[in-house]
Amino acid sequence: MSITGVYKGLDNVPIKETVISTIDGEKGKLYYVGYSVEELAEKSNYEEVSFLLLHKRLPTGEELKDFSNKLMKERTIPNEIWSILEKTPPGAPLMDKLKAGVDLLGLFDGEAEKTDKAARLSTAIRIISKIATLVAGVYRLKKGLQPLEPDPGLNHASNFLYMATGKKPNALESKIMDVTFILHAEHELPASSTAALVVASTLSDLYSAVSAGIGALKGPLHGGANERALEMLMSIKTPEEAEQYVLRELASKRKIMGFGHRVYKTFDPRALIFKSYLEQLSEMRKDRKLLEIANRIESVMIRELGSKLIYPNIDLYSGPVFNLLGLDKEIFTPIFAAARSVGWIAHILEYWEDNRLIRPRAVYIGPGPRRYVPVDER
Amino acid sequence: MSITGVYKGLDNVPIKETVISTIDGEKGKLYYVGYSVEELAEKSNYEEVSFLLLHKRLPTGEELKDFSNKLMKERTIPNEIWSILEKTPPGAPLMDKLKAGVDLLGLFDGEAEKTDKAARLSTAIRIISKIATLVAGVYRLKKGLQPLEPDPGLNHASNFLYMATGKKPNALESKIMDVTFILHAEHELPASSTAALVVASTLSDLYSAVSAGIGALKGPLHGGANERALEMLMSIKTPEEAEQYVLRELASKRKIMGFGHRVYKTFDPRALIFKSYLEQLSEMRKDRKLLEIANRIESVMIRELGSKLIYPNIDLYSGPVFNLLGLDKEIFTPIFAAARSVGWIAHILEYWEDNRLIRPRAVYIGPGPRRYVPVDER
Repeated sequence: MSITGVYKGLDNVPIKETVISTIDGEKGKLYYVGYSVEELAEKSNYEEVSFLLLHKRLPTGEELKDFSNKLMKERTIPNEIWSILEKTPPGAPLMDKLKAGVDLLGLFDGEAEKTDKAARLSTAIRIISKIATLVAGVYRLKKGLQPLEPDPGLNHASNFLYMATGKKPNALESKIMDVTFILHAEHELPASSTAALVVASTLSDLYSAVSAGIGALKGPLHGGANERALEMLMSIKTPEEAEQYVLRELASKRKIMGFGHRVYKTFDPRALIFKSYLEQLSEMRKDRKLLEIANRIESVMIRELGSKLIYPNIDLYSGPVFNLLGLDKEIFTPIFAAARSVGWIAHILEYWEDNRLIRPRAVYIGPGPRRYVPVDER
Repeated sequence: MSITGVYKGLDNVPIKETVISTIDGEKGKLYYVGYSVEELAEKSNYEEVSFLLLHKRLPTGEELKDFSNKLMKERTIPNEIWSILEKTPPGAPLMDKLKAGVDLLGLFDGEAEKTDKAARLSTAIRIISKIATLVAGVYRLKKGLQPLEPDPGLNHASNFLYMATGKKPNALESKIMDVTFILHAEHELPASSTAALVVASTLSDLYSAVSAGIGALKGPLHGGANERALEMLMSIKTPEEAEQYVLRELASKRKIMGFGHRVYKTFDPRALIFKSYLEQLSEMRKDRKLLEIANRIESVMIRELGSKLIYPNIDLYSGPVFNLLGLDKEIFTPIFAAARSVGWIAHILEYWEDNRLIRPRAVYIGPGPRRYVPVDER
């Protein structure tokens, strides 16, 4: 391997091997352990996908029942943690509350420092389960409501939606929430997974790694983008206005939220799946406004920028879907974090099988070596 | 730039340019902005070094006074945060309490989300100042003591030592604590700085980035190593036993703590500086036991492994120094974090001048594409 220059952004630099997922950016395909996300979204569920990512194979019926049961039993959060989070400033970002919540979970988890394989897997299940409860809870606290008890009769995604909104979801809402969790579960090595992996490569604990992932996902260049895409859609009144908006922004060389991706050079497959559910949900709600605005933005963008390989990404359609599910935009990125926790952890567990401390270099371009000058001579 | 293979560990892969620091691993030299750490340790102080790292030049007298004053004024921690940290389990790792403390500081800091240059610099100063108070406070809380009020008459390092131990340091103790902060302030891109940088590259906030740095530093392959080096030294009774210990461990192919470094292929210059202060401190305390054991381990290791370029690193001598300053080993890595906060932030501020999202890749080696198999057919 020859290394010359500076690999800023680590574009196209592979830092690990994986069997967890692969993205075909040219064809717009995403596979988890070889299965396409289209098929998983249609036929699987988040519990099964989590097992798949952690164990790198689909579970048997018995294994799935056992795994789902374990996830269900770990949903509660100690009351001490709720009462701490309740006292944090209402105006602070939900992602920061979630991160503090995960750190506190780690502090209160007496098993967090165990390093054998079985203990790490149990910790993984605790985190993946509880992080959804945390997201719903900090969301409700911010609205001045109390966190709700998990409902053991609902699956992971439906229970999350219930804990966030206080309403039991119907069949379509349940399916959409499950698909949301499946499609956000894993995406190879974006910044959040990379941050989590760097932390884990020092043999630090899983809570610390997940906390770093949340900190990275918060950024507007990463998970923070879905909120902004919805803000854009909601600021536009009609499809005609949408066309004018896109042309005006492009003329001013500004970026349009919900488009373009470091890896995809065509449609993000997740965007297409969300789009089809947005159509169903808009039909059910008899409210097609966001759908029509997003559709128009998409067609204008493809007309104007398709040749530059800038296509819709997941953020364009996930925001409107969440909005029609009755969720405020501040919970969008936290939902992404709750779903992605399994992807972060799967990559860490895989990396730990043959760990190497991640320690890159910087290229020095500064002055010196030079002598120190005492302050009265400066 | 041609990229082939997997850059696992990112060994020797530069991910940014910098004027902040450079390591000459062959010669065993470390420079901050062109000034050798030997000269800075002798003639400068942590406040000045922090200014140097953040502004990439030494301050004038007036600037130094102003900067030191700002740092001094930001030392206090809101009482709400102390009362939260007081309720966390006493047995939990101090690094986790520190991380939760930093996340809570971010939650309570109404300015944390501001992104203009001046606001970011103010946030940087708040973090660098308060993190030392947090470290001393969680250390005292864990011992069942109350955090102490900062003493505005003491400089950053001396005040930290006072807040941790409850005793005003004498001249040598003050100097050693200041040198400790200087020598731990910056070291290019170890895993902790990399984790902080990955988080910051999404344009997330400084608290989230520093929190990720703490999570990475906690790991036994990184900051956690200094505790273990002291454990080793304290488990040995005499220099003769030390020699036997090293030979026995090497024969069993085990690593000796406090030796070897990814970048240094000779003495870590910081180890040599700490060694000279350990000599002075041992003299003052009339207690040369740890010094003599460390010296013997060093000479046996160099005799046995010097040809393999495995030399003492900073951890071999920092632990005994902290021990003779009256500090328990659980505070060693948190001290490292408090001092390094400025290095993490300096790299982030430098990177933000021309930011690029850090998004590496993984090489897929798994099965597929393949069709989903329903659970009853598995």
